[in-house]
Amino acid sequence: MTDSRDGLEPFAAFAEELAEAARLVTRHYFRTPVAVDSKADESPVTVADRETEARLRDLIVRRFPDHGIVGEEHGSERRDAEFVWVLDPIDGTKAFITGNPLFGTLIALTRGGSALLGVIDMPILGERWIGAEGLPTQHIDATGRRAARVRSCPSLDRAVLQSTHPDMFTGADSDGFQRLGQAVKTTRYGGDCFSYAQLSSGFVDLVVEAGLQPYDFMALLPVIENAGGRATDWQGRPLTLDSDGHIIAAGDPGLVAPASLCLKSS
Amino acid sequence: MTDSRDGLEPFAAFAEELAEAARLVTRHYFRTPVAVDSKADESPVTVADRETEARLRDLIVRRFPDHGIVGEEHGSERRDAEFVWVLDPIDGTKAFITGNPLFGTLIALTRGGSALLGVIDMPILGERWIGAEGLPTQHIDATGRRAARVRSCPSLDRAVLQSTHPDMFTGADSDGFQRLGQAVKTTRYGGDCFSYAQLSSGFVDLVVEAGLQPYDFMALLPVIENAGGRATDWQGRPLTLDSDGHIIAAGDPGLVAPASLCLKSS
Repeated sequence: MTDSRDGLEPFAAFAEELAEAARLVTRHYFRTPVAVDSKADESPVTVADRETEARLRDLIVRRFPDHGIVGEEHGSERRDAEFVWVLDPIDGTKAFITGNPLFGTLIALTRGGSALLGVIDMPILGERWIGAEGLPTQHIDATGRRAARVRSCPSLDRAVLQSTHPDMFTGADSDGFQRLGQAVKTTRYGGDCFSYAQLSSGFVDLVVEAGLQPYDFMALLPVIENAGGRATDWQGRPLTLDSDGHIIAAGDPGLVAPASLCLKSS
Repeated sequence: MTDSRDGLEPFAAFAEELAEAARLVTRHYFRTPVAVDSKADESPVTVADRETEARLRDLIVRRFPDHGIVGEEHGSERRDAEFVWVLDPIDGTKAFITGNPLFGTLIALTRGGSALLGVIDMPILGERWIGAEGLPTQHIDATGRRAARVRSCPSLDRAVLQSTHPDMFTGADSDGFQRLGQAVKTTRYGGDCFSYAQLSSGFVDLVVEAGLQPYDFMALLPVIENAGGRATDWQGRPLTLDSDGHIIAAGDPGLVAPASLCLKSS
């Protein structure tokens, strides 16, 4: 399996197994009294984050012992391997600890720093989005599987913009985001990774965020791009494991350039 | 049934019938292509909002023809009746039209302008909160019914604050909300009525909003107060049908006074 385009189906099936395994752990802890610790960056973490990631790593090591792993809670191993899994066990820990079901598990398979395959799994909603090169993005829930597809949007002034929290943006980023907020039709906050799922299914036009880590965005990229959208950094460049954590996700690829211009101009 | 304390159970059972009926309509339209109109205040409205409210009004008129009704979409009738139902068929229409399940149906029964009974129903999550005078707030989902109870919070600097959107606050309200945002531990946006459900089940400490209409807040009050919390206007006064749409909801009643002080001081 050296040509990624020919052989992603088995990886996709395994990624769904991972998502199922993660659901068991996150659902077990949701709305139970879990201790909340603060990490070095003051973001919260719980036993549910740690146990979910440990479960995923264990499954990956058993199945693909030569693959690398980068995870939010337990660090990196074999990061220089050909294939590297990038994991965020609970994206939206603040939602998780406030009993809000809009948190997700993010699973990406990368090669040479680029995302080949991504899963956005919403354990409580019972919904999942999976996208991979050559495999159009699917939306899966209890009623079945269907293609997820972005919607078109002719201009910024018609766009619905989402972002997790205005405090993501500081300094010049904040000025840029405010300009973009004034240029679009409407802005909504909250949602973490679920915003990108909404975009991939054609309900939202733009998601713009900053301060993300690779485990926050790598899984999103194949979902968005194989649903017809585009995701770049704020300069319009492709996102990789080494990107700086600024993201523009557009359902209509034509929105990337005007959004980027709006975010950068001073 | 003239003493409301003795006789709310039948009304509560009927309010749950209403919530079930509303679910059928909102679930039918969720994530389908519905036309979105703009109301006079530029807020969006869809056929799902209108049909849901029409269904609720029809059921109320058949069962309690002498009761009044105040609804978001179809106006008021018999508003001077002893009992008046206050309805918001879809609280969070912006969530609804973006495929986000955090919208709810709000149903209140009022008497003399005060809320006796309230329902927060989350059709897609399959969750419901119901509270009434003398009937402790219950949280109902597919697994059963349980008491909902707020959590204690000793001071503002330990509080998790939620609000739907920072743009709710203009002028002096915006200054007040910013002061409060700096005084609390953390602020989260999004959620509409679901924020008050989170508060009533002890996951969030404060919800502060402005610009609400009676159909946005009347149903929340019995849910919050019969779960042990307190909801007032920004001056700390009880909320009634005639209130000005500013709300402080506190899981720990001790937070109302310091939050009010923070919001008002200039």
